[in-house]
Amino acid sequence: MNRPATTEAPSQRRLGMLEIDADFVEDVAVLVDADQHGMVLNLTSDLHPADLAQLLGRLSEEQAYKVFAWLPDAQASDVLVELTDGQRTAVLQDLQAARLRVLIDALDTDDAADVLNDMSDAQALGVLPDLEDTHDVAVLLEYDEESAGGIMAREFVSVPPTWTLEHVIEAVRAHATDIDDIYSVFVLGDNDRLEGVVSLKDLMLAPAEDPVRTVMHEDFISVPTDMDREEVARIMERYDLVSMPVVDSTGGMVGRITIDDVVDVIREEAEEDIQIMSGGSGIEQPDDTVWRVSRGRLPWLLVGLFGAGLSGSVIGGFEVALEQAVVLAMFIPIVTAMGGNAAVQSAAIAVQGLSSGDLWMGDIGARILKEMVVALINGVVLAALLCIAVFVFQLGDVPLLALTLGATMLTVIVLATTNGALVPFALKWLGIDPASAMGPFVTTLNDIIGLTVYFIYATTLYLG
Amino acid sequence: MNRPATTEAPSQRRLGMLEIDADFVEDVAVLVDADQHGMVLNLTSDLHPADLAQLLGRLSEEQAYKVFAWLPDAQASDVLVELTDGQRTAVLQDLQAARLRVLIDALDTDDAADVLNDMSDAQALGVLPDLEDTHDVAVLLEYDEESAGGIMAREFVSVPPTWTLEHVIEAVRAHATDIDDIYSVFVLGDNDRLEGVVSLKDLMLAPAEDPVRTVMHEDFISVPTDMDREEVARIMERYDLVSMPVVDSTGGMVGRITIDDVVDVIREEAEEDIQIMSGGSGIEQPDDTVWRVSRGRLPWLLVGLFGAGLSGSVIGGFEVALEQAVVLAMFIPIVTAMGGNAAVQSAAIAVQGLSSGDLWMGDIGARILKEMVVALINGVVLAALLCIAVFVFQLGDVPLLALTLGATMLTVIVLATTNGALVPFALKWLGIDPASAMGPFVTTLNDIIGLTVYFIYATTLYLG
Repeated sequence: MNRPATTEAPSQRRLGMLEIDADFVEDVAVLVDADQHGMVLNLTSDLHPADLAQLLGRLSEEQAYKVFAWLPDAQASDVLVELTDGQRTAVLQDLQAARLRVLIDALDTDDAADVLNDMSDAQALGVLPDLEDTHDVAVLLEYDEESAGGIMAREFVSVPPTWTLEHVIEAVRAHATDIDDIYSVFVLGDNDRLEGVVSLKDLMLAPAEDPVRTVMHEDFISVPTDMDREEVARIMERYDLVSMPVVDSTGGMVGRITIDDVVDVIREEAEEDIQIMSGGSGIEQPDDTVWRVSRGRLPWLLVGLFGAGLSGSVIGGFEVALEQAVVLAMFIPIVTAMGGNAAVQSAAIAVQGLSSGDLWMGDIGARILKEMVVALINGVVLAALLCIAVFVFQLGDVPLLALTLGATMLTVIVLATTNGALVPFALKWLGIDPASAMGPFVTTLNDIIGLTVYFIYATTLYLG
Repeated sequence: MNRPATTEAPSQRRLGMLEIDADFVEDVAVLVDADQHGMVLNLTSDLHPADLAQLLGRLSEEQAYKVFAWLPDAQASDVLVELTDGQRTAVLQDLQAARLRVLIDALDTDDAADVLNDMSDAQALGVLPDLEDTHDVAVLLEYDEESAGGIMAREFVSVPPTWTLEHVIEAVRAHATDIDDIYSVFVLGDNDRLEGVVSLKDLMLAPAEDPVRTVMHEDFISVPTDMDREEVARIMERYDLVSMPVVDSTGGMVGRITIDDVVDVIREEAEEDIQIMSGGSGIEQPDDTVWRVSRGRLPWLLVGLFGAGLSGSVIGGFEVALEQAVVLAMFIPIVTAMGGNAAVQSAAIAVQGLSSGDLWMGDIGARILKEMVVALINGVVLAALLCIAVFVFQLGDVPLLALTLGATMLTVIVLATTNGALVPFALKWLGIDPASAMGPFVTTLNDIIGLTVYFIYATTLYLG
């Protein structure tokens, strides 16, 4: 059986990337259902672990479980790291402790800790004590998953400052098989105190008999174990680091974070922000169960319902005005939609600036002032258009309605834009993720303010 | 004068990171205004380029221009790369071509191309022909900034397959000063055809007299020059690469992309998505001028106004119904807000899945079905709560209003949730960024659908 055709050029397929397309998944699924063990492994044998994980994700749970059981240990171990949490639970559910131990032993300690974190306590405790690196993995499990300690690995090459480069290179060789990514060697003094860092490039440049102490960089950047992983990502990104040491409270080096872990953090945090902004749980995954999804979203919908109920009661409070002029009801969606849009626009840029560090708390005054100017410009344009629409369509008592709507629009745009810029700063000050500023809560608040403004103007200007 | 106190522990300050806080900026600003050249350089001399760029960004344009002019060439060159586009334009505006050339010559070719891209054509053309790497930089300028060619650097270490590792290590040494980040050596055959890749670690492991051909990895991953940079980022992320070769249409290697560039791409694309979702231009920066911000946001506000106008005209079309029962107006915000919230929730997860590759076009059927089930569950809960509210507050003709609102809520939540999940797939199929699904356009569409459903039910069930 041939590997199915893909949309990629042959030159790229040769290079190890294979698009896991629908035909390929279908072929594998048929073979799995027919228990064609050998043929399946033939198709999957030279897949990159990331591609193989994607394939498993697109098979049924039962099929994925079968394929995972057939995989050689080395491949199974690599693919384990790449699976999503849900997929991992599925393939590991009935795995024997003996095989699980072999698979986890082949992982770096940070990946091993991640896998154990995702297992049930009973399953994890059945494996942990018998691992090769039980101590290291247990140490990692102690740290908060969202902290530097939670994403670091315990594997790194360290040498004393007195060693010559020749010895250091020997040390790198000795660790070459058990540590995948070696970018730097860490020079540790007494009590594992980190004194310097040497890159592999540095090792190649200086004479082999030089002591490492004379070559190492002493102005390295390190982070404490309890630093938030988002902050860790920002530091590695800002200073273009591929590997960074993590130190404990006594200054002793306890682990190392590599750039690939941080890339995942950046992606996850961005997804989390987008979900928070859109009223999701922040952790919803495409393969979550229906109940889980529903439970994650419902709280936000309830907040939204409560808020919209308040908006409704503002309208209810002006029922008399509405009875006098039903035409006023037509503009309710304009007031709420435009306030919401303007607020989200100004909130987005404030959230982004606060998250990247381009904005800081001290910028709040200048920021609000600038947003007010933008809002005045846009508000005038929108108010003018609304007035023109009233004239063109001859709605209600034309001049009075135009005046009312123009004044409402200008006020609402300015208030909402200012609010949108203010709330992220306020949330940050309160220690809440500024991204929440763009969620349903604030939009609802703007609806209430906007409708109140509208009906006050309507009562005083239009009906007054 | 002492360096101002910072909030960081001394142990961290020693390590090269300094928080650029308000006091520090203020101290520098005062010294700059007093033209205290030497004192300013004293304060800035051991700042990391990224921190120095942040400092310049927080000074006034005039102050930043002065400080930049005072900086030694090496530091000025490093900081140039870290500035935002607007800041860069400010500090470069009146710079003499001779100094500009020196600064740009010190950069890697990819950074040089970025800087030239941001300058006016006249300024760029005044410098380009006299650079040391004129040809390489000119080649890079030809590529789309959003493509692999646009983010790659032309600097890399390459060797013929016949060389021994000893020679290869010599080649790395020879390039160590002009290429900052060397992670791998590329083995090129005839016509620069890429035949294999060796990591620095590999170089240290095998005997020095082995030919590189026997050590190199032939199953490397490479990308073509015209691949979209977001796709490039996804590949480097997926396969955990720190450096990746870029090949032209003949298979010849033309450049190399490093992970730090890709980290920036991931961050920028995430920010762009968030802005597009929130109805911004996608490229707004906190330091843009008021006019630019206003111009970027106004189109979306106009789309929103037009859409809200349509929603308003739906209400206008049911003016008779509203005259009969003004109580119906109270629920307009509930209908629009809940539809919008539900749609954005389901759109967020579809956008995220499509962007990460966890979802693909073939998943559309299963996705929609799942979302409908979630919507039914949540819709029933919300409908029930709304009915209870009608009874509790004794609104309108209680049983009929409860029936109308319950039916509306269930229909609206199901339609909006389905819409939200569908639109990202449709946009992707049309070649439009799925993130637009969460912008004002779709929210508005949902408002119109929701209000139409509401007033049809109101006319038939409540008033019928």
